[in-house]
Amino acid sequence: MSNYNLKEIDTRAPKDVEKKHIKEATEKIVDDLNELQNLLYAEGKHAILVVLQGMDASGKDGAILNVFGRMNLQGVDVVSFKVPTAEELSHDFLWRIHKNAPAKGRIQIFNRSHYEDILVTRVHGWCDYDLAKKRMQAINDFEKLLQKHNCTQILKFYLHTSEKEQQERLQERVTNPQKMWKYNERDFEEAKLRSKYYEMYQDCFKNCNNPEWIIVPSDQNWYKEYVIAKTLRDTLKKLDMKYPSLASEKPKSE
Amino acid sequence: MSNYNLKEIDTRAPKDVEKKHIKEATEKIVDDLNELQNLLYAEGKHAILVVLQGMDASGKDGAILNVFGRMNLQGVDVVSFKVPTAEELSHDFLWRIHKNAPAKGRIQIFNRSHYEDILVTRVHGWCDYDLAKKRMQAINDFEKLLQKHNCTQILKFYLHTSEKEQQERLQERVTNPQKMWKYNERDFEEAKLRSKYYEMYQDCFKNCNNPEWIIVPSDQNWYKEYVIAKTLRDTLKKLDMKYPSLASEKPKSE
Repeated sequence: MSNYNLKEIDTRAPKDVEKKHIKEATEKIVDDLNELQNLLYAEGKHAILVVLQGMDASGKDGAILNVFGRMNLQGVDVVSFKVPTAEELSHDFLWRIHKNAPAKGRIQIFNRSHYEDILVTRVHGWCDYDLAKKRMQAINDFEKLLQKHNCTQILKFYLHTSEKEQQERLQERVTNPQKMWKYNERDFEEAKLRSKYYEMYQDCFKNCNNPEWIIVPSDQNWYKEYVIAKTLRDTLKKLDMKYPSLASEKPKSE
Repeated sequence: MSNYNLKEIDTRAPKDVEKKHIKEATEKIVDDLNELQNLLYAEGKHAILVVLQGMDASGKDGAILNVFGRMNLQGVDVVSFKVPTAEELSHDFLWRIHKNAPAKGRIQIFNRSHYEDILVTRVHGWCDYDLAKKRMQAINDFEKLLQKHNCTQILKFYLHTSEKEQQERLQERVTNPQKMWKYNERDFEEAKLRSKYYEMYQDCFKNCNNPEWIIVPSDQNWYKEYVIAKTLRDTLKKLDMKYPSLASEKPKSE
């Protein structure tokens, strides 16, 4: 299913889950994750690419801190894609992305990603529909390259927050001294474009759906972290990895 | 036309061309090229990727020296793709290639290229037919990305030499002190696989044919250089480039 209507998708945890239980479950999963990451690194056969997208203040930084924060730094990297530099603009839009694709054995986290080239750019009219279509095709080809030619598992998370929650978080950046560094006056203007963003996100969920996007209810951080951690844990478990023995061969590349 | 039979294609200049005239023509073209490269750099709208492939001793280095050697270094780069490093092998086979794709305004020369991943690897059985097919698809997607998303003109040259000429050149590496540094005992073994190489090259001309490969008769360096220089000059001329005026806008990226 990739025909999402974001306005109809809940931004909060299901009513029947209990915060206390979920937090305990997350703790356990994060421990599992650290063990699985070590195995991923040791085996060196698979690469993991985690794409985090969401409106401003949807909690991407917090997710990185709390889900991945205890992993062994040696095998995990985060890259934040900001406004492209002059050098990046002199190349195709996937050039800076490909450079940062994960090596086998590693987890690469994209804090925003190549998807901004069909999201913020479309919302502001810097990228029209025809170009967006071409870019979506290029993105699909690119993700297929990573999957088929470097054993890469791609996990694409959309952190889904309500307008009300976003406003509160943006407001906190104005008043909380520890959060003021994140304040950007344009964020309030950008937040007004929510329904335009929804439209573009939905188009991208529909057209760039291999793998499908995971919509993460993110108004409550404890639930958001649970969903991300659990999805990653389940993905890693399915890889059926093994610690190489002394006699193991070097991993094959494709 | 991309169904080539290399055994039937001449490795020497057509009978009716005269070395003296061709060399004069090449001189003139190389001058034009330097002017056109300056324009390419100044305009900053297009990128040029020149792929040089050929058997050992087919004259790739000489072509780089004599066709591109007088251009402004600031706008031309050469990269030689050797046996992949451990870091390169931990990524998909196009990762190291994409990193070296040309920026707008620049000429990038690939001395060997991503095509080795479906040539030498197939000749030696490190890459089977199924994997080769997948790689060819990935190569086509990748070249389309450069063409459509960074205004890149790709020129793919196969430097075609005869077995006799190759043997003489390899032998010269054994006897000429200035060429001994290029000597590699395995080259003689590799040369014996010529018909296997032909088969793989023909498959790649057929399946990766956008743009079509240019087969360059390369037994005589003066003719080889003429064909490469002329093809590049004609390609640059067709771009209809203009020096930006003071009032020009910044180039659009796609």
